[in-house]
Amino acid sequence: MSIDRNNEIEVKNEVERQFNILSRGCDEIINENEFKKKLEKSISTNTPLRVKLGIDPTGSELHLGHAVPLRKLKQFQDLGHEVLFLIGTFTGRIGDPTGKSETRKMLSEEQVNENIKTYLDQVKLILDLDKIKVVYNADWLEKLSLSDALNLLSQFTVSQMISREDFSKRLSENKPVSLIEFMYPILQGYDSVELKADVELGATEQKFNLLRGRDLQKNFGQEQQVCMIMPILVGLDGVEKMSKSLGNYIGVKDTPNDMFGKVMSISDELMENYYTMITDVPFEKIEEIKAQIADGSLHPMEAKKQLGAEVVKIYYGEEAAKEARDWFESVFSKRNLDVDLPEVEVPYGEINVIDLLVKEAKLLGGTSEARRLISQGGFKINDEPIKDIKANVNVESGMIIRAGKKKIVKVK
Amino acid sequence: MSIDRNNEIEVKNEVERQFNILSRGCDEIINENEFKKKLEKSISTNTPLRVKLGIDPTGSELHLGHAVPLRKLKQFQDLGHEVLFLIGTFTGRIGDPTGKSETRKMLSEEQVNENIKTYLDQVKLILDLDKIKVVYNADWLEKLSLSDALNLLSQFTVSQMISREDFSKRLSENKPVSLIEFMYPILQGYDSVELKADVELGATEQKFNLLRGRDLQKNFGQEQQVCMIMPILVGLDGVEKMSKSLGNYIGVKDTPNDMFGKVMSISDELMENYYTMITDVPFEKIEEIKAQIADGSLHPMEAKKQLGAEVVKIYYGEEAAKEARDWFESVFSKRNLDVDLPEVEVPYGEINVIDLLVKEAKLLGGTSEARRLISQGGFKINDEPIKDIKANVNVESGMIIRAGKKKIVKVK
Repeated sequence: MSIDRNNEIEVKNEVERQFNILSRGCDEIINENEFKKKLEKSISTNTPLRVKLGIDPTGSELHLGHAVPLRKLKQFQDLGHEVLFLIGTFTGRIGDPTGKSETRKMLSEEQVNENIKTYLDQVKLILDLDKIKVVYNADWLEKLSLSDALNLLSQFTVSQMISREDFSKRLSENKPVSLIEFMYPILQGYDSVELKADVELGATEQKFNLLRGRDLQKNFGQEQQVCMIMPILVGLDGVEKMSKSLGNYIGVKDTPNDMFGKVMSISDELMENYYTMITDVPFEKIEEIKAQIADGSLHPMEAKKQLGAEVVKIYYGEEAAKEARDWFESVFSKRNLDVDLPEVEVPYGEINVIDLLVKEAKLLGGTSEARRLISQGGFKINDEPIKDIKANVNVESGMIIRAGKKKIVKVK
Repeated sequence: MSIDRNNEIEVKNEVERQFNILSRGCDEIINENEFKKKLEKSISTNTPLRVKLGIDPTGSELHLGHAVPLRKLKQFQDLGHEVLFLIGTFTGRIGDPTGKSETRKMLSEEQVNENIKTYLDQVKLILDLDKIKVVYNADWLEKLSLSDALNLLSQFTVSQMISREDFSKRLSENKPVSLIEFMYPILQGYDSVELKADVELGATEQKFNLLRGRDLQKNFGQEQQVCMIMPILVGLDGVEKMSKSLGNYIGVKDTPNDMFGKVMSISDELMENYYTMITDVPFEKIEEIKAQIADGSLHPMEAKKQLGAEVVKIYYGEEAAKEARDWFESVFSKRNLDVDLPEVEVPYGEINVIDLLVKEAKLLGGTSEARRLISQGGFKINDEPIKDIKANVNVESGMIIRAGKKKIVKVK
């Protein structure tokens, strides 16, 4: 779209348009006024905003929780702004304990390099790598001296650092907080100085660190960055944060059938949140779906299938979305097992049914849930229900395990 | 003295002899066993101990409080050990707030260089500069990188740092503690690694920092240094730490007469402490003096004059000590004012007598003390007592102010 940069009203409208697109799904923008001013300056001078997202090369499998800020970056990119994708090659070796209860291990340089490869390989499913600027903070942080470090340290007080929630929590529980951990938010802030960032994205748990960028930019005489704080995506269980270790995630590299099936496993209550956070469905459309479910003109199951298709569409396109839906309907709705099923690796041999469901196949989150499901006949081996919670089964290759209506896997 | 290094008993005796000399006047040795082992190894292998004392080039006028560890270094030197006199050219720019209630200002490089000159000029009154090794920590700390800094930071926890008394006090009073201040004890500790120090000297308020050297040496695979902790010298008032800002000090560059006069101004109670801490008078002799005072065979005034002479002797020699004593006796005991008096700078003109004594001439520590002295007739201007605490006097050049029997000054 071409804007007449000298026409105040056109500029103002464009600011509003971009602001509405970009603020979608944000928890907080610090602050909105500054953001609008930056957008206005960017539009009226035709200078793209420099939008920073930093990640640690910890080598995790990307899931839709990670995709939330990445998709926000894509919106910036589509609006013509400059995306600075910062890989913490230096800070990643420190490890930030944000939101975790223990000091993280330092990563070796080889690990870091390997992780970056894996990471970008997944990022390109969302962002066009050729259009973004990938930067590595070791490029400038490795050049800093002890004196530089002291200069940075001198700009912050102990009380300020301790105020970060996870630090104060660990200190109050007498758990160790290493001094090196104080450097993480400071160096993250310094990255913003180095990059002259206009905007930095991060999840709510990153808010403290994002604000340190504003502190340092101010002290270094720069315009302060706008902090765009994204909510943390809830996992499939609807309770915990989506994470690989909890198993409640949809990976960006999951197959279309897996993506679709996992979306189908969420509760009806979680649907609206997922529609907002992980799809591009416009707000008005989401409101319409809600209204239709409320007046009974749309079955929740149908709304969820549409959600599943929207998600698959983002990563694999329309055709794949349709195929995944067909697959799901044939397996779950039409009870046809003669299809490709998601595979799990489970040690062969005798195992108690609860252990199989919870510990090995990881289809359920806990023992009590497993007990309930088994007693109600929702647990089946090769389509045969087993209702005895003390029963053992003999796991072998090709065995089909079903837990309830929406989860089915085949032993590899 | 020549020791037969293969004779176990001779070595053991020499260890005891050196230990007794060196432990004199120490508050604490961490720890004594390790110290004896180091002495034994040093004596039996004829390898001098590496003894570190670090100072910040903050350019202060050296007083006898500073002289306490310097004179301890001299004892080490006289016993053949290697004195490493560390000047904190790097750390001095940070400033350590130990024992102070506020973050210190950073010093510029020029200030630091100027201060070193002034400092060494005074140190040579106590130590032979040609025999000691003067080292500057900027020589190695300036070469450290941010990565090195992180490595050091990673070896300490927040709780550990906060446990230092002045930090915890300031934090509990909601006073700011800059993060840079945490680096001070760590870098002081790292200096010990760099110097492979066997012993580090410091005052009690330095204990926390000295122990960090032990931590780091251990982590760097070195034998841990022995920390030799010296008491803080009390000032002439017998209450506060000796310090320039409180005016309760004897400077190493004070004239013999000033030194002597200042010693004479201390309370009888403080005498034993000063005999032990600021002279070389043997313990047995000190005990003898105490006994003689107790049984009335030695007047405390005479014991104090001997103390004054001992102090002057250290810095100016025997002859000067005798002359200072003669001067003091002629001025104070024989009431002869026709001699050189210590001069003070006081603004000329009308001033209340209490303000003159406490705020300007700084002869007394407080208002109530001044009130008492004046009422008792101990305050004299040009040998005329003034007993009215509300009186004003007209200060002019050459005016002689006396406060009690032992303090007399002339207005410059």
